[in-house]
Amino acid sequence: MDNQPFHSRLAKLRNHMNNEEIDLLIITSPVNIFYFTGFYSNPHERIMALVIDAERKDEYLFVPLLDFDTAKNASFIQNIVTISDSEDPYQVFASTVSKDASMIGVEKRELSLFQYEQLVSKFPKSNWTDLESFITSLRINKTPDEITKIRSAIHMIEEVMEAGRKVAKVGITELDLLAELEYHMRKIGSDGPSFDPIVLTGKRASLPHGTPGRVAIENNDFLLIDMGVRTEGYCSDITRTFLVGEGTKEQEKIYNIVLEANQKAIEAVQVGESLGKIDIAAREWIKNSGYGDYFNNRVGHGMGMEVHEAPSVHELNTDLVAPGMVFTIEPGIYIPEIGGVRIEDNVYVNENGEVEVLTRYPRELIRI
Amino acid sequence: MDNQPFHSRLAKLRNHMNNEEIDLLIITSPVNIFYFTGFYSNPHERIMALVIDAERKDEYLFVPLLDFDTAKNASFIQNIVTISDSEDPYQVFASTVSKDASMIGVEKRELSLFQYEQLVSKFPKSNWTDLESFITSLRINKTPDEITKIRSAIHMIEEVMEAGRKVAKVGITELDLLAELEYHMRKIGSDGPSFDPIVLTGKRASLPHGTPGRVAIENNDFLLIDMGVRTEGYCSDITRTFLVGEGTKEQEKIYNIVLEANQKAIEAVQVGESLGKIDIAAREWIKNSGYGDYFNNRVGHGMGMEVHEAPSVHELNTDLVAPGMVFTIEPGIYIPEIGGVRIEDNVYVNENGEVEVLTRYPRELIRI
Repeated sequence: MDNQPFHSRLAKLRNHMNNEEIDLLIITSPVNIFYFTGFYSNPHERIMALVIDAERKDEYLFVPLLDFDTAKNASFIQNIVTISDSEDPYQVFASTVSKDASMIGVEKRELSLFQYEQLVSKFPKSNWTDLESFITSLRINKTPDEITKIRSAIHMIEEVMEAGRKVAKVGITELDLLAELEYHMRKIGSDGPSFDPIVLTGKRASLPHGTPGRVAIENNDFLLIDMGVRTEGYCSDITRTFLVGEGTKEQEKIYNIVLEANQKAIEAVQVGESLGKIDIAAREWIKNSGYGDYFNNRVGHGMGMEVHEAPSVHELNTDLVAPGMVFTIEPGIYIPEIGGVRIEDNVYVNENGEVEVLTRYPRELIRI
Repeated sequence: MDNQPFHSRLAKLRNHMNNEEIDLLIITSPVNIFYFTGFYSNPHERIMALVIDAERKDEYLFVPLLDFDTAKNASFIQNIVTISDSEDPYQVFASTVSKDASMIGVEKRELSLFQYEQLVSKFPKSNWTDLESFITSLRINKTPDEITKIRSAIHMIEEVMEAGRKVAKVGITELDLLAELEYHMRKIGSDGPSFDPIVLTGKRASLPHGTPGRVAIENNDFLLIDMGVRTEGYCSDITRTFLVGEGTKEQEKIYNIVLEANQKAIEAVQVGESLGKIDIAAREWIKNSGYGDYFNNRVGHGMGMEVHEAPSVHELNTDLVAPGMVFTIEPGIYIPEIGGVRIEDNVYVNENGEVEVLTRYPRELIRI
């Protein structure tokens, strides 16, 4: 494995510690540990941590005992400290690093109150600061290597979408189609779904949080498929909506409004302009087309190691589009009596500030 | 839906508030909200909470705006308060309930430090107490209705195990077999895997944290399959180890030691005796058989709405076996050069204190 990206990220972290006078840094989120070290594990109830000690100028990876070999092989971090099930992990931290840290950096959205209280009992005199926004500022700027992995996750899910299109027909239930899709996700070698796939047909396609059921596809239904896979630690998340049979003129009209909204949103992705403008471009188009009441969520969200991450592409977000960002563009129209249409692509703002649409699956209305 | 179990659990919660002089209770764990109200949703980045206000003698369910209809239909809680994406959820809590709570109960392992700080800013004068051990004391005592759902999850996974046994043969890779297993989980109508299934063949079956790969099943391999499904909110978790072809005398010997360890552990499940004794029964047998170095984890864990929950069945646990408990019994022998054998069953200590083995899949060595 090429360790250069990890060394470079750790250097930025150390620089941040220096600037903010943070003496000790404790990162416990498994994806953030992966981001900085290349080692991924899900510790479940156990705790795992990347710890940087400014005074000792050293990094430590604290892992559950049974992860020792994997951690040793996966990461260049020299100091791997194991924690057995009979040890107090917070005591292990405290007896390894400098005890007199005045400022400790943690991920406040990741650390539980229980974990925090345990840490406070070991470092009672320390102040606690949040690393979240700094880490987000790094993660939001994807490197070419990360883009390669995201592209790979997208191409995999596009293959699965195509397999699904071929299998979908009148009479098959949402759950049976879901079974086929998940089967293909595995067969093409992904690490499985990046979230519970959404397969909804007919009126049910208008449910924002619908879960697939024992409902069969009928003629003239919209069939909405929203799914992604995980591979090499990175996610995809795309949606296509098919029309079963001929459908009505109104269905075709709705589809084309969403397609146009998708295109207008993509055109609005411009470095230096606000993220909010992207949402507004889609929203205004849908509103002017007379369906403003039926598009009730944000137009997109960032995507990377997690399927939902920064930036949030919503109407009120005044943050600026910047190189390195990857996010979804997913306008939709959801009408309880008719069903729903969503067309979701993944876009990347490259190092030159150009917008690349990473999804290649056809966007035009496909009848099945 | 029968709401009686939920009313009864809420009554116990109110009683606990009264005994412990808790004025306000904020439950944010989705499974605990399901346990007390019958409403399940995964709010992802958003926050969801069941709040009980002792002074106003009322319960509130705070849900993201798009979950309103589902929550209204799924739960008998009268006061459903929605939180839109543009609102501060903590402000919504504070403006709904009594502001002068002296003691607030939360789940300290569930609440993030970020969420806690937000709550502290709205309730600056309150003290904070942990509800976790009280909720665990309720959840550990399963009701007959919960047992019905757990049985159903177990019977489903046993069907999947049998389907897997029929498909498994020399040449199929772990990942391809995994794809078939997940496919069957969906086809029989479960809500999918309760955890990432483990399918390991040959020497790899000795990896405690191994993940399935592009490795084909070979003759004389052990094939270890550890998996479960989720249905109606409850989980199963079983393991069977098959022998591919004839195998060696030593493989047969190891298998039978693990089988005997499994039986000895099940026999050691006795109301009023310690949980630790169950682990020791299996551990001593394996040790006396000469394989003590190759059984390095606890013999079992509780199972219910979550695949790992209380009680932990490990050597040092002096807590007593009690009616209502459901846990796994999963001794194993893992030898790097040979592979691993694990036989995992699910047992229930019923209301009369009798031990019921819920798993019915054959335990004797099966060759495929």
